[in-house]
Amino acid sequence: MRNRQIRLISRPTDIPQPEDFCVEATDLGGLADGQFRVRNQLLSIDPSMRGWLADPDEYGIAALGRKSQRVAIGEVMRSLAAGEVIESHHPDFTKGDLVTGWFGWQDYADVTPEAVVSRVTAFDLPLSLWLGILGMNGVTAFVGLELYPELGPEKTVVVSTAAGAVGSVVGQIAKGRGARVVGITGGAAKCEYCREVLGFDHVVDYKNNGFAEDLEAALPDGADLYFDNTAGSISDEVILQMAIGGKIIVCGTSAVNSWNPAPLGPRIERPILAKRLTVQGFVAFDEFARWPEIIDQLAERVRDGSLKYREDIVEGLERAPGSIADLYNSVNLGKRLIRL
Amino acid sequence: MRNRQIRLISRPTDIPQPEDFCVEATDLGGLADGQFRVRNQLLSIDPSMRGWLADPDEYGIAALGRKSQRVAIGEVMRSLAAGEVIESHHPDFTKGDLVTGWFGWQDYADVTPEAVVSRVTAFDLPLSLWLGILGMNGVTAFVGLELYPELGPEKTVVVSTAAGAVGSVVGQIAKGRGARVVGITGGAAKCEYCREVLGFDHVVDYKNNGFAEDLEAALPDGADLYFDNTAGSISDEVILQMAIGGKIIVCGTSAVNSWNPAPLGPRIERPILAKRLTVQGFVAFDEFARWPEIIDQLAERVRDGSLKYREDIVEGLERAPGSIADLYNSVNLGKRLIRL
Repeated sequence: MRNRQIRLISRPTDIPQPEDFCVEATDLGGLADGQFRVRNQLLSIDPSMRGWLADPDEYGIAALGRKSQRVAIGEVMRSLAAGEVIESHHPDFTKGDLVTGWFGWQDYADVTPEAVVSRVTAFDLPLSLWLGILGMNGVTAFVGLELYPELGPEKTVVVSTAAGAVGSVVGQIAKGRGARVVGITGGAAKCEYCREVLGFDHVVDYKNNGFAEDLEAALPDGADLYFDNTAGSISDEVILQMAIGGKIIVCGTSAVNSWNPAPLGPRIERPILAKRLTVQGFVAFDEFARWPEIIDQLAERVRDGSLKYREDIVEGLERAPGSIADLYNSVNLGKRLIRL
Repeated sequence: MRNRQIRLISRPTDIPQPEDFCVEATDLGGLADGQFRVRNQLLSIDPSMRGWLADPDEYGIAALGRKSQRVAIGEVMRSLAAGEVIESHHPDFTKGDLVTGWFGWQDYADVTPEAVVSRVTAFDLPLSLWLGILGMNGVTAFVGLELYPELGPEKTVVVSTAAGAVGSVVGQIAKGRGARVVGITGGAAKCEYCREVLGFDHVVDYKNNGFAEDLEAALPDGADLYFDNTAGSISDEVILQMAIGGKIIVCGTSAVNSWNPAPLGPRIERPILAKRLTVQGFVAFDEFARWPEIIDQLAERVRDGSLKYREDIVEGLERAPGSIADLYNSVNLGKRLIRL
């Protein structure tokens, strides 16, 4: 059985591009004891993939304890994926099981249980959701918002990448708790989606020349919470509009192409001090033990219609290498997935 | 009775200099009902004075709700001071009372109770302490450390301006709770003071060429808490040495001369995210109602010798205008005060 694999062939210093990868086909061997074979059906494309390839000196990589674990040259690209167990030499996994996990950019993955992120339990919902709203993206939004227990009516929440896989969930959960939600996104289509489908109270287009003024106008009393998925120039404007005692949850840095060295931006200690802000970072995988319970809650909300989502599924393994750059160029409308 | 006053005559855009002020002598009039007259004995010189003069667009000023209250051109320079009530038309204040408060750079202040910060209650301790370790500086250290309830043995605390009025108290309280304390200060004399008198475990001189390496060597397991009094290039190095889950308390920005516009520095969202840091700002005056109780605790520690302090008292009102720049140039060794 042939297995097509996408391997890293050059180390990107900026956003990974198609030419950083090659496609190879190899023959699958036999499974070792304790292994099982997953046929990937869907690959997840996430902004964090940039960091998995980055120079080990990048803060993120070292701090996450994966210093030696960045994707090596020649290695199959690390990726979350969803698929079906087609053969198993492990007692806990059976042919026909649907799973998500670290299965990489390839047709088949021979893995052990450590590679598994979720066993699919909600068969009434599309498998693809387990890589998005019921996967890393949804859980990230959920876990991040737990850092702001004050969330509720009277609070104004700003979220960047508001139409995206994480931002859209953040905004909807915040709306569900009664907060006023101001979404930041780019372009008319995404703005309309945030307003009309997701029901955010206000949407600000960061691609507009008057972004700073638009944002200020949308926040007459300032922002109590800023859920930051971008960093960079978008966040530079939001911090100026924070309310006294506000909180910034740092979830992602998708507006920054490289952190080695860290790019320059306006220093933020003074607004943090004068406005008594709290800025907090988090990583959803730190709460990995709680994922099944969190996913159950998210699935319930998807079923009752209170959590909407959008997917951007493209066909074919060969579309994977260009998809990270697509994310950074905001080509996708919704969670980008590759269907094999 | 003549009252010498130091008034603002030009708006500094950087560190305030002597030429931004003039000395004037006026005749004191009579007290209105509800007023009392304080004869200033000591003036407090604090880094925050820069902000009280800054452009109102500076984040800090606007955020503190003092937009219209920055010191106006022609106004007596705002200052904390300590002195004696020499005449009173207010029932709660009596001739002979010792008080600290917003009495300004002048010989006499005719004020109402709102101007008072503390009534001196510990007569066994020098009055000057009420402007330092028993005043804004000591209370700031105390209140700031309350934001890190995890403080204790096993924790490594880094404090900048470690020999200064706030930093020295932070380090000593942290030592008293069993933490390992790494102080950052500049020059051999201050380093020796931190090591020999304050008893910090390790001192790093930011003026050394090898500052980054020295800091890294002093923090083999990273910093759990960074009490940041400086911002700027010192903090740029400390954030690289934070431990996973660490906290940064933003107390002051003395390494930055002007915040309008905010100076550029390396962006910090990535280390905040990847290391799951929490960065929090605070203002000690938010806890003003608790100051008397906090000062009592600090006074007890001064008496039992567990809190050491150093003062740099210069003589004469005419020394005040140059003293803010002295602080920023680190001319002082200990809390800078002006004795009248």
